[in-house]
Amino acid sequence: MSDKCDLGLIGLAVMGQNFVLNVESKGYRVAVYNRSREKTDEFLNRRADGKNIKGCYTLEELVDSLTRPRKVMLLVKAGDPVDAVIESLIPLLDRDDIIIDGGNSYFRDTDRRAEKMEKLGIRYLGTGISGGEYGALHGPSLMPGGDRQAYQEIKEIFREAAAQTEEGPCVGYLGPGSAGHYVKMVHNGIEYGVMALTAEIYDFMRKILELEPEEMAEHFARWNKSRDSYLLEITAEILRRDDDKTEEKLIDVILDTAGQKGTGKWSVQDALELGIAVPCINAAVNSRLLSAARNERLKISRELGGLKLEGLSRLVGVDRSEESRSGVDRSGAGSLEEGRQRVDRSEEERLGVDRSEEDRSGESSLVKQEGDRLREILPDYLEAALAFGILIAYAEGLKLLEAASEEYGYELDLAEVARIWQDGCIIRANLLQEIRRVYREEEPVNLFFSPRFRDQITGSTAAVRKVVEVAKAAGLAMPALTSALDYYDSLRAEESPANLIQAQRDYFGAHTYQRKDREGVFHTEWQDIHNI
Amino acid sequence: MSDKCDLGLIGLAVMGQNFVLNVESKGYRVAVYNRSREKTDEFLNRRADGKNIKGCYTLEELVDSLTRPRKVMLLVKAGDPVDAVIESLIPLLDRDDIIIDGGNSYFRDTDRRAEKMEKLGIRYLGTGISGGEYGALHGPSLMPGGDRQAYQEIKEIFREAAAQTEEGPCVGYLGPGSAGHYVKMVHNGIEYGVMALTAEIYDFMRKILELEPEEMAEHFARWNKSRDSYLLEITAEILRRDDDKTEEKLIDVILDTAGQKGTGKWSVQDALELGIAVPCINAAVNSRLLSAARNERLKISRELGGLKLEGLSRLVGVDRSEESRSGVDRSGAGSLEEGRQRVDRSEEERLGVDRSEEDRSGESSLVKQEGDRLREILPDYLEAALAFGILIAYAEGLKLLEAASEEYGYELDLAEVARIWQDGCIIRANLLQEIRRVYREEEPVNLFFSPRFRDQITGSTAAVRKVVEVAKAAGLAMPALTSALDYYDSLRAEESPANLIQAQRDYFGAHTYQRKDREGVFHTEWQDIHNI
Repeated sequence: MSDKCDLGLIGLAVMGQNFVLNVESKGYRVAVYNRSREKTDEFLNRRADGKNIKGCYTLEELVDSLTRPRKVMLLVKAGDPVDAVIESLIPLLDRDDIIIDGGNSYFRDTDRRAEKMEKLGIRYLGTGISGGEYGALHGPSLMPGGDRQAYQEIKEIFREAAAQTEEGPCVGYLGPGSAGHYVKMVHNGIEYGVMALTAEIYDFMRKILELEPEEMAEHFARWNKSRDSYLLEITAEILRRDDDKTEEKLIDVILDTAGQKGTGKWSVQDALELGIAVPCINAAVNSRLLSAARNERLKISRELGGLKLEGLSRLVGVDRSEESRSGVDRSGAGSLEEGRQRVDRSEEERLGVDRSEEDRSGESSLVKQEGDRLREILPDYLEAALAFGILIAYAEGLKLLEAASEEYGYELDLAEVARIWQDGCIIRANLLQEIRRVYREEEPVNLFFSPRFRDQITGSTAAVRKVVEVAKAAGLAMPALTSALDYYDSLRAEESPANLIQAQRDYFGAHTYQRKDREGVFHTEWQDIHNI
Repeated sequence: MSDKCDLGLIGLAVMGQNFVLNVESKGYRVAVYNRSREKTDEFLNRRADGKNIKGCYTLEELVDSLTRPRKVMLLVKAGDPVDAVIESLIPLLDRDDIIIDGGNSYFRDTDRRAEKMEKLGIRYLGTGISGGEYGALHGPSLMPGGDRQAYQEIKEIFREAAAQTEEGPCVGYLGPGSAGHYVKMVHNGIEYGVMALTAEIYDFMRKILELEPEEMAEHFARWNKSRDSYLLEITAEILRRDDDKTEEKLIDVILDTAGQKGTGKWSVQDALELGIAVPCINAAVNSRLLSAARNERLKISRELGGLKLEGLSRLVGVDRSEESRSGVDRSGAGSLEEGRQRVDRSEEERLGVDRSEEDRSGESSLVKQEGDRLREILPDYLEAALAFGILIAYAEGLKLLEAASEEYGYELDLAEVARIWQDGCIIRANLLQEIRRVYREEEPVNLFFSPRFRDQITGSTAAVRKVVEVAKAAGLAMPALTSALDYYDSLRAEESPANLIQAQRDYFGAHTYQRKDREGVFHTEWQDIHNI
């Protein structure tokens, strides 16, 4: 028996270490290399100690350790480092050896590299990996694309390392070139959407319903019961977590600015390139950008306090005893309608509308009741809104994959994509089983329009609308949810207002327009511009 | 006196023809060339007949006709055609001659070309031109960037050809490289935003208030009186226009799908690249994409008719006599609150909430009154909402310019940009005088936050919220307006919910997080993942 290794892995950050341990645990021998020798030593001495893992201190050593065709996997930072490693590997590899890029590479980089490798006779697999540290160790979702034959060589290892479901391991060949990295990019786009939606629902519960983290955690946990969504699950856990440095909940001491890596941004940029609207995902990316403009936000919020979020309780008829909470300014607590009417009235005064006080005096107890009822029902509405938004985020992402498959020749099987996402990855949820069935059995014009989701969607829109209305009345931004609703409403409108846009474009730029009632392209002489 | 020409122009589509006639009318002699000889002949025989315009049939002839340093302006289709013409010109031009690209070139193309020309000793000016056909002829807004000395050579011609205001002609040197084309790109992004906002307000008036085009035109014309906004002005004219093929208004027979050129898309893509959120402009681009997915829309709208837009009158307490309108289904007409409550009730039933009918019976006349009042006041609210949205669209665009200036070294003077946009261009409006003053006198963290706009903004938000609430309750998409409001609400929130996003990212990806209460970067061991 040879002591050669089955897989070589370059890059021993946590993801790399965990993936190596995962593969080794399935009975494979793995050679590892890291640019800094210390990291390799540390790994060998600790987590890899006693395992079937060979440490290498040069790329030559790594390559020489591998069975043929050699399978070298990169888990290094996307961008230039990937090119640098590949350049170093080229002279060491032989024809038909295989390079697997397991990072979050930009799909156009993957296409460029795959093309170059093909010319050199080296086989290339751009492979998306999702599941974070935990998934890398216990079974991630693997999204390989590129050289189909090369996939056959790595298939066994990938299938064993991947998350396992009743419907098979969460891996499968996705398509040529950058198919795998594209699918991973869109996976992350959907992830951005779902995260933004949970954050907005959290924000609503925190600022409008004034719930404590533990209470919100209960809601998220309950909502997750039938859904088994990883992101809902960890949201509940996060909200329950105590800070170990203060007496507070951890969530309350974390800074409210979110970073972003390239994939969310790329999803939106390429969606625009392909002419596909992904408004919910798009809003999620924009929200992170706005959260990062913290100084701007703080300056503006200090001055534009007319509708301070702290005082929003008055908008939803808060009816909790004063004793149960301390330190919160409850002045002005009333009902949603009272709150709105207060706003409306001053606006109407500004606009010169006469509205006698008598008209209104009879309303207060009624609107108070309305507010109380609303407060009671809002958590259920939030659940429906979250589910609605999440379905739209997936629908947008899958629509983008459909267009990309067409444009870039990936020939994606969306049912297979949904199957691969069913476990191991960050956006895993029961929902994906349903989505898989949709794409196996139908060719929906849009995911949400599938008969399988029709009832859910139509049954939840009233709740979504109410949530958005309350948020907008209260001055709470919910861009991802609102964009999801606007996406839905745009697509279910028999007539869009783009006839006016066409007319405007023809007016100022002679761009011509089409008509409803006859074929062809038309231009109107809107004014006689030829006479100076 | 030499019979040499002051300017050479390549590309005789309407914009080119009009700009030549404009320059010639100011006393200059212009040489023209078009790839197809027929177009040149047609121009010479008709519109250029008797004018001081020289037709050329080869580029050599054109170049030979010009005084030195030669000034050759391109008005050809952006993209490859520009490169092709430049390649042909290079061997014909001498050191210090000037190429001016007046098209909507992608700014990175302009940078690439400018760099190449610099090496060849040819001076390059990427120049945005706005104003459409009319502006090209009567005075456009000119946005030149690139070689500063070259601008001095063309300055006189540009200043005479540009739109004239009390504050000078609408032209000025903007900055090096692609500064001019970048400013024009963002101009167009703002244009997308304003157009989408007018289209959404039109949609609201059409579908919810059920106004006729003439009535809507009156509103737009009235709103425009103090604003002098070109896009509002032409919207009113468009809505009044009769179709010359049918008995209908032209707006009613134009197809509801909008095309788009690159500039809107590029604005959003580069905003994402620079980490700047431009949600209103972004939503405008997405709306055009969704409008173009007409088949998808029609299929979906045929089935998801639960909240048909035709029946929306019931939502806003329409109180117009039946006689005044025919052919409209008025069944179910009621009040806004009644309509909402109908929706709510079924939703509450679904969610198992008990709500006795008795609670509600007393409300109907009150909510009817509320609905009637709302209907009366909504046009004023729409005006406020439109003004709010437009200010946000400009704010987003200027924020993007600020970031781009920093990133690309344009050193833009935003007051000068606003001055150049004051007339001639598509987004011209009185508002730009105010904006100019802001950037002359302040360094606002955000345009809308300037004291100059503070009252307008805070005075209009109640109306904006009400418009969005009604639209969302009714099922009408208003993504540009809603995104503008969410942008505003995001920036005036003291706390964003991105603390949850940070926690989620740290949970699944060990991305670390920052804290509110201490410096540094933190990571929580959310679970013990190292034990398999």
